[in-house]
Order: sequence, then C-alpha cells, then structure tokens
Amino acid sequence: MKSKPLILKLGGSVITIKDKPYTPNPQVIRRLAEEISRAKPETLLVIHGGGSFGHPLAHEYNIAKGYREKRQLIGFAKTHQSMVNLNRLVIEALIEQGIAAVSIPTSSLTITNNGRIELLMEKTLVGLLDMGFVPVLYGDAVLDSSLGFTILSGDQITVHLALRFEAEKMIFGVDVDGLYTEDPKLFPSARLLREIDLKGLRDVMKGFSGSRSVDVTGGMWGKVRELIPAIEKGIRVVITNALKPENVYKALIGDEEIGTIIKGS
Amino acid sequence: MKSKPLILKLGGSVITIKDKPYTPNPQVIRRLAEEISRAKPETLLVIHGGGSFGHPLAHEYNIAKGYREKRQLIGFAKTHQSMVNLNRLVIEALIEQGIAAVSIPTSSLTITNNGRIELLMEKTLVGLLDMGFVPVLYGDAVLDSSLGFTILSGDQITVHLALRFEAEKMIFGVDVDGLYTEDPKLFPSARLLREIDLKGLRDVMKGFSGSRSVDVTGGMWGKVRELIPAIEKGIRVVITNALKPENVYKALIGDEEIGTIIKGS
Repeated sequence: MKSKPLILKLGGSVITIKDKPYTPNPQVIRRLAEEISRAKPETLLVIHGGGSFGHPLAHEYNIAKGYREKRQLIGFAKTHQSMVNLNRLVIEALIEQGIAAVSIPTSSLTITNNGRIELLMEKTLVGLLDMGFVPVLYGDAVLDSSLGFTILSGDQITVHLALRFEAEKMIFGVDVDGLYTEDPKLFPSARLLREIDLKGLRDVMKGFSGSRSVDVTGGMWGKVRELIPAIEKGIRVVITNALKPENVYKALIGDEEIGTIIKGS
Repeated sequence: MKSKPLILKLGGSVITIKDKPYTPNPQVIRRLAEEISRAKPETLLVIHGGGSFGHPLAHEYNIAKGYREKRQLIGFAKTHQSMVNLNRLVIEALIEQGIAAVSIPTSSLTITNNGRIELLMEKTLVGLLDMGFVPVLYGDAVLDSSLGFTILSGDQITVHLALRFEAEKMIFGVDVDGLYTEDPKLFPSARLLREIDLKGLRDVMKGFSGSRSVDVTGGMWGKVRELIPAIEKGIRVVITNALKPENVYKALIGDEEIGTIIKGS
C-alpha cells in the first residue's frame, strides 16, 4: 500500500434514522461524502453500520444467533440485500463527490467462527487500495463456521482491518460527542473524555465492573472493548460526532479537537 | 456440496434492453425468477451479464483495456456500481419468489491476469451453496494483475465455476434460439443445431476459419469457444432462448428440447 490507510467507520445511527425501519439519512450521507472528498486522504477505507436497514430484518429472522430452521435462509438473504441497498446510497454519494468508491460486501469475503472473524479474504481489498480506490465495507449477515451464519458488526471489521493493514488511525463517526465517563443522558455529571490512553481506559472500565448496567455510558464502552486489541498495537482512535458538520473532515485531516482521542500505546 | 450444482447464466441482453442504456427488463427478470422458483433445483448458482447496465460506462472509460489514467478510477467505480444496481433487480425478484439469493460481486472475489481469471476466492461461495443459498454473481469490472483492471465476462466466470465445482450442467439463457450453423439473421439457410458434441463443434468451427467475419453466427460461436474447456471435462451445456417463457424452467428440470444441447465429451 502507498501509505498506511486511514479507516473511517460511519455508524448506522449516523447514516440512517435509527427508529424508522429502512430509512436512510441522505442529507448526512451527502455531507459526509463531501467532507471525505474535501479531506482527500491518500489511502482510505470506509466501513459503515446497518442502523435501521440491518436491525429489523436481522431481528425478525434471528440471524445473529445462527441457523435453526430453513425459513431463516430467506431472512439472511433479505438482511444482506437490505445492507446492499443502504450501501448503494453511500457509494453513490461518494461517487457523486468524485471518489472512486467500490463496494465490497463483507459477506463475500468473511467467515466468522462463533461471531468472531475467522477468515477475511483480503486480496481484492489490498488490490483496490493499491490502485487508489476507496473500498467500502459494512456490517453484514455473514457465514459462520460454528453457527451457520450470524451478524458481523462494522466495529469488529474495522478493528480487524486496522490490525491487518497497520492503519494510521481509526476514526469512528458516531451519534454522540465522544466517550463519556458515564452515560450523559442519565448522569449530568458525566464528563467527556478529550484524550485518554490504554491505562486510563482500563481504569475507567474497572470502575464500571460493579455497575448493574453492562454498559453505563450509552453503548460506547462496548465499542471501546472491541477496539482494545488495535489500541494495544499503537493504532490511534478518534471518536467523533459525525452528525455535526466538519467533525469527520477535521478527523481526516488530523485536526482532532473534535471528540475523544484514544492514544495508541 | 449437497449435489453437483446447476449453473444458470442469464445473458445481459435477456435481463436488460440492449439498446437502451441502464434499462432493465423487469418483466423478463420477474418471469425468470418465477421459473427458477418453480423448478427448485437443489444446488443452483446464477450468473448474469451486464447488457445495457455494463457496456456504456465500461466503454466510456475504456475499462476493458486496463488502467491508463487516473480518471478511469471513477469509471471503474461507476461501472461496478451500475452492475450492483442491475444485480439488485435480479436478487429482489428472486427473493420475491422465495429464493434465498445472495449477491456476490465478482469484483470482490476475483483478480484476472490479462483478462483471464487468475484468482477466484471461493470459500464464501462454497459456504453459501452448502447452506442452501443461491449465490448470484455477474460480469463485472475487476482488478487485473497485468492491466490494473479490466472487464470480466459472465461467460468466463460461468465456465470457471462449472469446472471448479464440477457442475452438472451449464444453462445459457440467451436472446436467440440456440446455436446455428450460420448467422440466421444473414443467412436464411442457417440451421439450428439441436444436439452437437465436441467433435461436431470443432468441425463446424473449422468451417468458419476461412470466413471474413470473426463471428459469423451472431455472437454465439465466440461464446462457444469460451465453453470448450468445460465441455472437454464432460459438462453438459444447454443454450436456450430465455426471452421465451418456460425455456429456462424446462432446462432446469432436465427437459432439454428447447434449444441446443452440447454433450460433454
């Protein structure tokens, strides 16, 4: 690869309307495509979540828990195709902005084992990056060697690829301002963490272990747990609110005063 | 795999309107999905061509001849995405008929070398077939280790997969009635070949060698040349007019009086 890639993960709750099934957020998708185009990173890989395109069908057919009965097959097919439809909007917005974005369905390349990536065939992905394309992957229904199939999150793919390609940085565009010490929706005393390292993260996470809720900070600490292997390898993380204009642009050009920075150890 | 797969290739000029850029033929797509659903083959792989979705962009950006300048990158991206859009119509029609069809973009799995398949990563494909899904691939813009990129035809993919998976049969749904001795549009004396074997094919092809036109039979003999390695391995071929109702259904259930049969040697 020409240079270490930047990996940008766009949350499903950023590019879709979370509570309305199969409803995209085209204004946000268009704005983000424009910000990416303006930042023009040399080597970029984009991964997006499913939001309201992925969850309803995956839930209806119980895809995450694996194969139990034949009627789930059509549910798997529908879940994947719904993700193709969301991905199409992202790709078309990127192409519209002059970015040579090429869709790579995660399910074409990946097999998990009990929900964890066991195989990710990366030759075409590397080839596309080398040529100067922007490959776009996404959370998807995938085959699983133990369960038959399951759902693979965009976050897990992001971390896997960041490790494989020794990413310069992972940028998580989410629908909150960053990582808080507590769930800001429940605790007015919650503090936004501006910069934290692995040791700091672990200290904060230890504080949670006695808590009744598995994830007291509005879903973000579950994500952080997924990130740890990459942080341990020294890959920098930026978590920023992609619903606010210019944040993703700034994160891409290296202006990081826009959320939480997790320093690679 | 449960059983040797049937491989069905649907020509681009069947599922799109050939002369109208980016115009599908939704009635035909719907009818073919219904015929496939009714025939219910145990193990089926579908490949389709690009027709008027693939050719205009591939031509505009000169994708087939390989990388020459940076502006082609966006052309590659657009060509591929146009194929995604056509594929979506095929997949949605199949799902509508209760078929668990899963799209696999050829470009995600394949790298060619000077236009010939050098790598086709098949693990997810095999996994999908084993689970009872119907994978759907298509002619596509792909990476090429010599040219940078190129266009890979649905026919070449079909033959490659038929050989790899020891297909029971390849069915080519095209826009003519089968293989003729000469181009029926030019020569009223042209005869439709009902059944032919490899030796017969070679005899007919020898007869063409003195001909001025590269392909005197309306494009079909070029296709046949691509098929020869599979025919040599004993894989049966049916070429039938998929624009005529019931032909694809009959070919799938083994009623082959509907075009040209090429007997595997």
